[in-house]
Amino acid sequence: MAPTTKSHALRAKRLGIDTHDEAVIYMRSDCHVCRAEGFSGHARIRVTTDKKSIIATLNTIVSDILSPGEAGFSESAWRRLGVSEGDKITVAHARALDSLSRVRGKVYGQALADDELAEIMRDIVQGRYSDIHLSSFITACAARGLSEQEIVGLTRAMVDAGERLTWSATPIVDKHCVGGLPGNRTTPIIVAIVAACGLTMPKTSSRAITSPAGTADAMETLAPVDLNLAAMRRVVEREGGCVVWGGAVSLSPADDTLIRVERALDIDSEGQLVASVLSKKAAAGATHLVLDLPVGPTAKVRSSSDADSLSEHLLRTAKAFGIEARAIRTDGRQPVGRGVGPALEARDVLAVLEGAQQAPLDLKARAVTLAGVLLELGGAAASGGGEDLAEKTLADGRALSKFQAICEAQGGMRTPPIARQQWPLAAHSSGRVTSVDNRRLAKAAKLAGAPGAKAAGLEMHVRLDDLVEKGSPLFTLHAETSGELEYARDFIESHPPIIDIEPAK
Amino acid sequence: MAPTTKSHALRAKRLGIDTHDEAVIYMRSDCHVCRAEGFSGHARIRVTTDKKSIIATLNTIVSDILSPGEAGFSESAWRRLGVSEGDKITVAHARALDSLSRVRGKVYGQALADDELAEIMRDIVQGRYSDIHLSSFITACAARGLSEQEIVGLTRAMVDAGERLTWSATPIVDKHCVGGLPGNRTTPIIVAIVAACGLTMPKTSSRAITSPAGTADAMETLAPVDLNLAAMRRVVEREGGCVVWGGAVSLSPADDTLIRVERALDIDSEGQLVASVLSKKAAAGATHLVLDLPVGPTAKVRSSSDADSLSEHLLRTAKAFGIEARAIRTDGRQPVGRGVGPALEARDVLAVLEGAQQAPLDLKARAVTLAGVLLELGGAAASGGGEDLAEKTLADGRALSKFQAICEAQGGMRTPPIARQQWPLAAHSSGRVTSVDNRRLAKAAKLAGAPGAKAAGLEMHVRLDDLVEKGSPLFTLHAETSGELEYARDFIESHPPIIDIEPAK
Repeated sequence: MAPTTKSHALRAKRLGIDTHDEAVIYMRSDCHVCRAEGFSGHARIRVTTDKKSIIATLNTIVSDILSPGEAGFSESAWRRLGVSEGDKITVAHARALDSLSRVRGKVYGQALADDELAEIMRDIVQGRYSDIHLSSFITACAARGLSEQEIVGLTRAMVDAGERLTWSATPIVDKHCVGGLPGNRTTPIIVAIVAACGLTMPKTSSRAITSPAGTADAMETLAPVDLNLAAMRRVVEREGGCVVWGGAVSLSPADDTLIRVERALDIDSEGQLVASVLSKKAAAGATHLVLDLPVGPTAKVRSSSDADSLSEHLLRTAKAFGIEARAIRTDGRQPVGRGVGPALEARDVLAVLEGAQQAPLDLKARAVTLAGVLLELGGAAASGGGEDLAEKTLADGRALSKFQAICEAQGGMRTPPIARQQWPLAAHSSGRVTSVDNRRLAKAAKLAGAPGAKAAGLEMHVRLDDLVEKGSPLFTLHAETSGELEYARDFIESHPPIIDIEPAK
Repeated sequence: MAPTTKSHALRAKRLGIDTHDEAVIYMRSDCHVCRAEGFSGHARIRVTTDKKSIIATLNTIVSDILSPGEAGFSESAWRRLGVSEGDKITVAHARALDSLSRVRGKVYGQALADDELAEIMRDIVQGRYSDIHLSSFITACAARGLSEQEIVGLTRAMVDAGERLTWSATPIVDKHCVGGLPGNRTTPIIVAIVAACGLTMPKTSSRAITSPAGTADAMETLAPVDLNLAAMRRVVEREGGCVVWGGAVSLSPADDTLIRVERALDIDSEGQLVASVLSKKAAAGATHLVLDLPVGPTAKVRSSSDADSLSEHLLRTAKAFGIEARAIRTDGRQPVGRGVGPALEARDVLAVLEGAQQAPLDLKARAVTLAGVLLELGGAAASGGGEDLAEKTLADGRALSKFQAICEAQGGMRTPPIARQQWPLAAHSSGRVTSVDNRRLAKAAKLAGAPGAKAAGLEMHVRLDDLVEKGSPLFTLHAETSGELEYARDFIESHPPIIDIEPAK
């Protein structure tokens, strides 16, 4: 899209305002260009340099933080434009986006065709959607739902809007957990096991969407994860596996933008979830995939029938991209391991790999099951022999060595931080633990600062069916600041109990 | 909601950044408070002075436009907080809004109860929703639709979240047109007629939502419309009628916020439309109401069955608020009058009131019909005698005198501006005018600058069934700047014809 109207030159100024992803241009309200073009508040403006062109939202300036003849930019606009201080830029009205009509169509129940989805994803990746538009797209897809065809179309559109990896080795195995279960951090363990057994697993992981930690957040406390494509390739070629942040390698970049708004809305619907998962896998070049679906009343997948529907969509969409996938249902009634939050989960991972005495057995068992499926899918173990091989690889220390080697290759292994602020929640009564509300537990961890604050979150001291004494700690909140600790405490104390205790019979 | 976490004092600084309605707080990324509280990009922050408390979105600053110890504010945050330069403010994490869970519920198909809608509207009026949240609420309501009960609940919630007018006189008559038809500017004429006949019509009008002009935009070119409640009351007590902007008197203020986001999305769904219309009328104290529903293939109401559904919802909701309403369907196949855009439509209004020879007959006929219904509803004319009385009041100049008196009472009558930039669209062929695309016509007028640029829009030279010669002008674009003129031309020339011409038989 070339600028279509007369444009006017201004000097670029970096204002140093971080508006997160949204590109913002700041112009003086008395600027001759604003007046000549008839720009007014919140207008969408096309900004052009001699090399590049972006769309930005206008904020007008009524003070002297800009001089006449200057146009200011937010950090994201500055990055996207790639300008230097004082560079000449021109501005014009941004042409109305045709793809927004498709979004409106979806609001009113019209299906989205493949080319329409492609157009929407291209516009999103180019930064042409404002936050208002992104929010409407996400909400419309959640409210109206996406058909099988739309899910495949959306997945393909997301893949095509970014880079796509190719590998000389086959098979390329991959793994994904359909979140919602705090502490379920099996990925680093699985990568270590299968890579130690000779399979190739170039794992890209996401940061948290609505949870207190994504795999990338947890892994980051153990090693750098912001590797670019070339660096990731070197790690995989050397070690057969990696655990890096997907956003840094620009696989399905639309997904990252959508996830930011989904997080603000706390919305994560089935169709978008399937497209999000499989666009990353297809773009990463996966040929074999195991999917972990934790099912429980307060997990993301709440019932067996929800799991049926989600598995079906995931497997069918995987097939459309030539990926051989298997979905494994796991227990989603309570958190996995002890830690909830980046550093706390990383500590659980290390304990399992090191075969430490206090290592959480549930985390180990899950990792072994899923790694076993992958070993079989990838041909490293005979059918039925995957779990045994996985168990042995952990027990003899080969998985730990491989994990250390991967961390070193990614930039150096490090020790997860420990929070300065801690507060134990005491049991109000004695009895048996009958239920754990994963959602409110996750919320408490987030209010304590996770995943932004790496050491924040909580550490569980009890599991379902445990007997507890009145006054004994149920979990300990961890926070990096006292403000966040208080905030999480306030939430816990002003809501119904997160952990139910019934008198033991 | 009191701040719930430890807070820290900073000095308020007005940065002079107009972010439109969204309240934004700017804090240095190295600010000790940011770090101590664990604030990060786009966090929602509670800002408190000794008198007030608001929620604002965080933008972090990595430059020196703020000094250490300062917190900057956008213009809307500054207004809402009511602070002065250097005042002490404290900040804390904003507690998660409970009402956002209701919005998510609606996304997934749960009905919104009365108290939930009340909570959502209160939060919106208090500025607690970010643009992302507002967009999701609007999209969810449009995609899922609103039941009868939800529409009444939403309407009541919108009324209760603002001021409510009471009048000593009864009846209080009112009128509303369910937009979508360019140039349909009957309101000032109707107010003049019915007020001249002794009825009380305290008319509050909106600015454009997705159209090139709202009544308030057009009226503003004839007299001030930003009257506060006291000033509006004085006008109505003196003249029996007024035409002011609703936003300035804080009737249903939630509506104004919702409308801004609806405009960015170009979404305007049935339930929200009904609530928007009737919340304003109920809050204004109306007892009798006439509704103008233009029906046509490119009007807002496209078919007779759409009109049935909309009338039913409007009349039922009106009844729930004790308002006696009548819905009148009118021809919505083409624009009304000649002008499209604030000043151009005001000129048509004046021509009708003055009985000028070139006055558009269709605009006059509509105004007379609708005023006739109101005269009957309000008891100023016997059943069946309303139109005659309206016609007579126009013909003998009483309506014009009343209109001039109202304009003077509102602050002084003025002459609508004329655009400096004009461009006539020539017919590509000879023949008969068979259709007019109202939507694309409106879009062209908006691209030319309407309603922001008062003189912008377009002037129609032909109507349906007219015979035209090749090269003769179909309409003339008006713009205040050459940039906008070119932009509208570009749109017209790169799309299918707005006016279809078929060879005459």
